[in-house]
Amino acid sequence: MARKKKKLRIIPLGGLGEIGKNITVFEYGEDIIIVDCGIAFPEDDMLGIDLVIPDVTYLTKNKEKVKGFVLTHGHEDHIGALPYILKDLNVPLYGTKLTLGLVEQKLEEHGLLGSVKLKTVKQSDVIQLGCFKVEFIRSSHSIADSVALAIFTPEGVIVHTGDFKVDYTPIEGEPIDLARLAELGKKGVLLLMADSTNVEREGYTMSERTVGQTLDEIFMNSKSRILVATFASNVHRVQQIINAAVKFKRKVAICGRSMVNVVNVAMELGYMNVPEGVIIDIDNINKYPPEKLVIITTGSQGEPMSALSRMAAGEHRKVEIVAGDQVIISATPIPGNEKFVSRVVNDLFKKGAKVIYEALADIHVSGHACQEELKLIHSLIKPKYFIPVHGEYRHLKQHGNLAHELGMPKENIFIMDIGNVLEITDGVAKLNGSVPSGRVLVDGLGVGDVGNIVLRDRKHLSQDGLIVVVISIESSTGELVAGPDVISRGFVYVRESEDLMEEIREISRRALLKCDERKKSDWATKKSIIRDALRDYLYEKTKRRPMILPIIMEV
Amino acid sequence: MARKKKKLRIIPLGGLGEIGKNITVFEYGEDIIIVDCGIAFPEDDMLGIDLVIPDVTYLTKNKEKVKGFVLTHGHEDHIGALPYILKDLNVPLYGTKLTLGLVEQKLEEHGLLGSVKLKTVKQSDVIQLGCFKVEFIRSSHSIADSVALAIFTPEGVIVHTGDFKVDYTPIEGEPIDLARLAELGKKGVLLLMADSTNVEREGYTMSERTVGQTLDEIFMNSKSRILVATFASNVHRVQQIINAAVKFKRKVAICGRSMVNVVNVAMELGYMNVPEGVIIDIDNINKYPPEKLVIITTGSQGEPMSALSRMAAGEHRKVEIVAGDQVIISATPIPGNEKFVSRVVNDLFKKGAKVIYEALADIHVSGHACQEELKLIHSLIKPKYFIPVHGEYRHLKQHGNLAHELGMPKENIFIMDIGNVLEITDGVAKLNGSVPSGRVLVDGLGVGDVGNIVLRDRKHLSQDGLIVVVISIESSTGELVAGPDVISRGFVYVRESEDLMEEIREISRRALLKCDERKKSDWATKKSIIRDALRDYLYEKTKRRPMILPIIMEV
Repeated sequence: MARKKKKLRIIPLGGLGEIGKNITVFEYGEDIIIVDCGIAFPEDDMLGIDLVIPDVTYLTKNKEKVKGFVLTHGHEDHIGALPYILKDLNVPLYGTKLTLGLVEQKLEEHGLLGSVKLKTVKQSDVIQLGCFKVEFIRSSHSIADSVALAIFTPEGVIVHTGDFKVDYTPIEGEPIDLARLAELGKKGVLLLMADSTNVEREGYTMSERTVGQTLDEIFMNSKSRILVATFASNVHRVQQIINAAVKFKRKVAICGRSMVNVVNVAMELGYMNVPEGVIIDIDNINKYPPEKLVIITTGSQGEPMSALSRMAAGEHRKVEIVAGDQVIISATPIPGNEKFVSRVVNDLFKKGAKVIYEALADIHVSGHACQEELKLIHSLIKPKYFIPVHGEYRHLKQHGNLAHELGMPKENIFIMDIGNVLEITDGVAKLNGSVPSGRVLVDGLGVGDVGNIVLRDRKHLSQDGLIVVVISIESSTGELVAGPDVISRGFVYVRESEDLMEEIREISRRALLKCDERKKSDWATKKSIIRDALRDYLYEKTKRRPMILPIIMEV
Repeated sequence: MARKKKKLRIIPLGGLGEIGKNITVFEYGEDIIIVDCGIAFPEDDMLGIDLVIPDVTYLTKNKEKVKGFVLTHGHEDHIGALPYILKDLNVPLYGTKLTLGLVEQKLEEHGLLGSVKLKTVKQSDVIQLGCFKVEFIRSSHSIADSVALAIFTPEGVIVHTGDFKVDYTPIEGEPIDLARLAELGKKGVLLLMADSTNVEREGYTMSERTVGQTLDEIFMNSKSRILVATFASNVHRVQQIINAAVKFKRKVAICGRSMVNVVNVAMELGYMNVPEGVIIDIDNINKYPPEKLVIITTGSQGEPMSALSRMAAGEHRKVEIVAGDQVIISATPIPGNEKFVSRVVNDLFKKGAKVIYEALADIHVSGHACQEELKLIHSLIKPKYFIPVHGEYRHLKQHGNLAHELGMPKENIFIMDIGNVLEITDGVAKLNGSVPSGRVLVDGLGVGDVGNIVLRDRKHLSQDGLIVVVISIESSTGELVAGPDVISRGFVYVRESEDLMEEIREISRRALLKCDERKKSDWATKKSIIRDALRDYLYEKTKRRPMILPIIMEV
């Protein structure tokens, strides 16, 4: 029998057709490497769910092949699922210093520190993982130390952009290494996988530096205390706020757990440059006059439990918003968070704060490339094949269109779904089947124990509440000995609905009687007859459909 | 005793500090008139609620004073609550023809047609209601036949803009009557109440006509079937779609209940100009080739049950999306609806449709005035006092700032909350107390029977579900005769959690035993001891907090 020819297989297990939980598998023969391993936030219909991680059944089934995780940057949607996945798939992690610094914090929280191998790489490093060579290429994003990847495979070179923008004037270090990308392109790239997040936006994403200019203007003209909310992980943004504070002789207090964490990691690892004595303890803010103070805080997405939301609601233990405070929300609401942010802005205004937010000034720039930047990357890399990644279906589709407009044949563009397998042999790519993929829901300590039935019940309960009907039956005769008792929650005010409750008891009684007449004595039938009778009655009467739980006790 | 001096009282009962349920009360002595009476959509935390109407306790208590409702236009947030409020407060309604046409449809649905007096007015008409004279002033908005109001009171003239924009090239009729507003301003206006929706946007809102130009371009270049989703009530938008269809020789089918309703009313009342034979029945769309067909549909907000959403999901009975279809979503997502719209766009792309939506083209304009238009209105009207209306707190605040920048003293600007009373006597305005106000929740047939306790229970149930523990007790001895039985919904998969269920039964048993030992025999105590024991155990074990319902049956 001829030995089966080895194939290069590219399998996204998350991040395509969705926002979040980015993870991609590269497989050749007996080797697998994985790029990123992120979480997604729960959709509106995932009631009570804390976060969503990718289904990695395919990896745990092929555990012995997996050589390691390669990480592009330290955002939650790229590293957040690691603590969950590593419990079952303990392989080394490769990433830049800040990325691994943030991973370390997570591992510590999950009690995994020390049990996982962390291998720090520098930009331009090349590592060997099985048959794969991976080169880390300097890039720009809304977090420091992000990289693009060149993955050298037996079939050719794959360039994975990671999350990126083209920022010619970054806050620290050099811009994205366009020369290296061009060089790779010139030598021939088999496949490009590129960030699709901002493909719907024309033009260029502004440089992070422009935010600094706006901050300077605001700081220069303000005699108030200044509070700036931004993403904790946006180290360069935080640096710029600190720069402005130093320039205008203000002290800086840091507020919010993740902000404190990230700032600590970033300072320890040398990613932030903070002169001695600038940062003060949040407990000491009242020792400084307002015009000498800046508070950098979490809560730029209006998250209900975040520091800024609690300040706005007057519920923060250490910071009280007073009239005249200048609040700057240096972020754009992620789709779905608009109402949260709006509520915080309203609350801040009510407390007499001046609020600068997205609609009013240029105090935020995106971390993702817009159309002209994407065109630049495509033109430099000139890949044979293209997989748009990191986006909902519409983004992937538009990014495919963009590649096509730049001259790539349609058949070389693969709009993939998670779990799909792209196989490349002898330089020819084709889709070939799929592997298990999907979402695993994390709720409290439970990972994967909440599925569709539980979610459907939560949805049902959330809409119209619940009616419990309990009866006791003599076990030998089947005679009713107690009840029906009725308990209701989330349906109507019971105190104002005594008549309705009595009606429910009466209908349950009649339904039971009917069962006896018809000699239907098994419990399941009795329950379903009670349920049907109540359901019809309640819908007729209230146009609501509470969950109805008949319970029969045998005594 | 001296007779108490009459005062002019202005009381917003909705629409301030919130989006929706616009309603404002004007009172002088024994006369009350009400401007608009709208609904709001439920907030995210109002689980299961269908819609929200204003609390009009103040009006029902002063029923004999109320002379009528004056309506500015036919949008839901201005007329939607009428059927609910009129049941208790049956007074005449005054509005333009289209506005009352849309009100009539609502009254019919609620079985109120014929029992309410509808008085049609024309633009420029003046009516007398008690001591108030109300003049209807031609305006522009995203629905035809909208008006601003001049309310002549014994204290002076109030101008209420209603919802408006300044459109110099409207689709039908004349632009907003700036000359009349200027004339009123010249004679002296006591108080301006103006739309704050778009106060955060610089510049001007584009004319509705610009959408027609974009539609023409798309229609000209398309050989596909075209589907356009927009707000049913945007009669001029629908007219423009029909115009483009006529121009490019396509037939038009109408889809979605509210779209059919509004188009029928608008055509009957002469607000739409549709040549004979252009509109075809939705059942006949397959008789025409794609390039000869336009479907106008509801669903521009991605509402899950709307026609477009069902088409996108492949669940619409009459319209199947096929590859090549050109879909145009002619609307902007209302905050909170972004994800719904995004889902529909993704689904349409997956079916191979081409989709044009807000991010990609100018196929929508707002119906509300931006900053430059607001400045124009303030400058023409030059009121003594100003109340910004129709917006969240941040909009009202910004609108107040805008008025101040135009020269109005701060003390003449009133940022009000609903229920607040602004009193004007002898030309001097001051806030003086407040009246009951708030939200009344409509859920199915229930109006106001769902309150905070029911909502809190729904929220609790939605997050972690429910555990019911039932036991039967011998009534004389207090001995356990059956149970504990445990039922769980929305918590964990019961089938995969048999051990946990057994644990729950065991803990309940032990808790009962403890009660007996301590001679605690009253039910309430027993229940609460079981509840506490289970709550602690389950949180420890799962970090979840399901609702726990212990039930004790006495037999």
